[in-house]
Amino acid sequence: MVETVHHLPWTMDDRSIGWKALASNISDLAAMGAEPRWALITLSVPPHWTTERLEQVYDGLYACAAQYGVSLIGGDTTSAPEHLVLSVTAIGEVEAGRALLRSGARAGDVVFITGPLGLSAAGLDLLLRQHEAGTAEVAIEAAMAESLVQAHRYPLPQVACGQAMSAVHGLVHALNDISDGLASEAWEIAEASHVRIQLHKTAIPITAGLAKFSATVGRESLDYILYGGEDYQLVGTVATERAEELLATLRRVGASPAIIGMVQDGPSGVEWISANGSVEAIQKRGYNHFAKS
Amino acid sequence: MVETVHHLPWTMDDRSIGWKALASNISDLAAMGAEPRWALITLSVPPHWTTERLEQVYDGLYACAAQYGVSLIGGDTTSAPEHLVLSVTAIGEVEAGRALLRSGARAGDVVFITGPLGLSAAGLDLLLRQHEAGTAEVAIEAAMAESLVQAHRYPLPQVACGQAMSAVHGLVHALNDISDGLASEAWEIAEASHVRIQLHKTAIPITAGLAKFSATVGRESLDYILYGGEDYQLVGTVATERAEELLATLRRVGASPAIIGMVQDGPSGVEWISANGSVEAIQKRGYNHFAKS
Repeated sequence: MVETVHHLPWTMDDRSIGWKALASNISDLAAMGAEPRWALITLSVPPHWTTERLEQVYDGLYACAAQYGVSLIGGDTTSAPEHLVLSVTAIGEVEAGRALLRSGARAGDVVFITGPLGLSAAGLDLLLRQHEAGTAEVAIEAAMAESLVQAHRYPLPQVACGQAMSAVHGLVHALNDISDGLASEAWEIAEASHVRIQLHKTAIPITAGLAKFSATVGRESLDYILYGGEDYQLVGTVATERAEELLATLRRVGASPAIIGMVQDGPSGVEWISANGSVEAIQKRGYNHFAKS
Repeated sequence: MVETVHHLPWTMDDRSIGWKALASNISDLAAMGAEPRWALITLSVPPHWTTERLEQVYDGLYACAAQYGVSLIGGDTTSAPEHLVLSVTAIGEVEAGRALLRSGARAGDVVFITGPLGLSAAGLDLLLRQHEAGTAEVAIEAAMAESLVQAHRYPLPQVACGQAMSAVHGLVHALNDISDGLASEAWEIAEASHVRIQLHKTAIPITAGLAKFSATVGRESLDYILYGGEDYQLVGTVATERAEELLATLRRVGASPAIIGMVQDGPSGVEWISANGSVEAIQKRGYNHFAKS
């Protein structure tokens, strides 16, 4: 987490910087079906960051560690010339042979997600619009706005989902966490598994909050879902005949999963299938730190 | 490793930034008697760093990893606004119950080091003087200068020493690596073990290169040794009656160890004992990132 790159004073409060840095690493473990166990924290601190602000960052780190049963066991603290840099290494455990990978998707699988997407990206967009134009410009209910902001600042990695899936040997063929948007993560599975992934446009769940926000600001909800990221839900594939078993497994741990597409043979790639059956390629892009935008 | 804090273009070449970042983490494992196994690399890259320069950094990382049998298994790459930040997490293994700690020093132990100190700090001082005043100002032999610079840029963590010591159960009572200078590291052992450490001024080995450099620039060799750091030698304590066995163990793995002091009862602290027997407190300082100098 690099100040100015991953967060600005008007998008993240200090506590959420700590929470999210650890949460995003725990999410990588969740995507392998692992149990998070330990984390190391490296913090580079510029002179203008006060002790009180750093305590907030640590408060967020400890809160996330406590929620997910992670022990903070080490790391390093150094000074920095200008910008706060927070780097987390998380370590977890999974039974030998049970780790879930991106590379096992097969033609005939269906594609699932563990919960709703696009909320974090909408929350970020809301925060940026409020900062630029003043709060009056974005006319959505306070409670709804707050839930989008919360999704951006305090995401919840899907550890229980990951572990429930790795516990049933062979149930899930491929799994990835959604840190950079659905398009980018589906592409990673498609390329690692050498398959073509077809997402059904009408099958993607859109929450009421996201729909309302998108309508208010005049953007497509699917843009936030495809290219926004940082929701830290999971996307994976499962054999069609075991899809119901998978959904039941995920619901048992409190998730709201959905089937959103299919896996086909063919060159690696990701496509949209519209309601009328038309096919459209989905670009391989998400949040890219080195893109010249 | 933070650009401007840990290195400047005239103190470290790009390849050495990678080497030293990994080496300093391997040194922490060496100080516990562990076998380094894996490392994760997190790199935040500002726009002005070219691919060619980054390849040099990775070249140094891979060279160090190969030399110490470490597998680079992951990490993260992000952009950065202005300064390169390189963070390494190293993971190693040690047999249960065999890890060496700072907390076991006992009154009656002698204090040892695994090799000569102060070379890295002298190399840094040389590089800074050359940058400020031009190379002609520091009149020491090129080969000697090169060896000091090499000590600063490509330090060698003492993994073989650490493992040889942890292999003999109970031989070493306390161990620490010297990353921030002998004073600071001896203080860490004294505080963790609740003992007083007495260092014998005349027992500290000073290499010919360091002596020559110190004389040329008009500084005390012991200043580099006490407060310089980054040599990544090890300092520890051993029962007096097993000191010879320890020295033989270290020499077998190619080290040039020395006995430099004693452990006494009393309030935690570190002292100098001069040739005439006078006692002088050694301040608890080393390289401190947050010191206002």
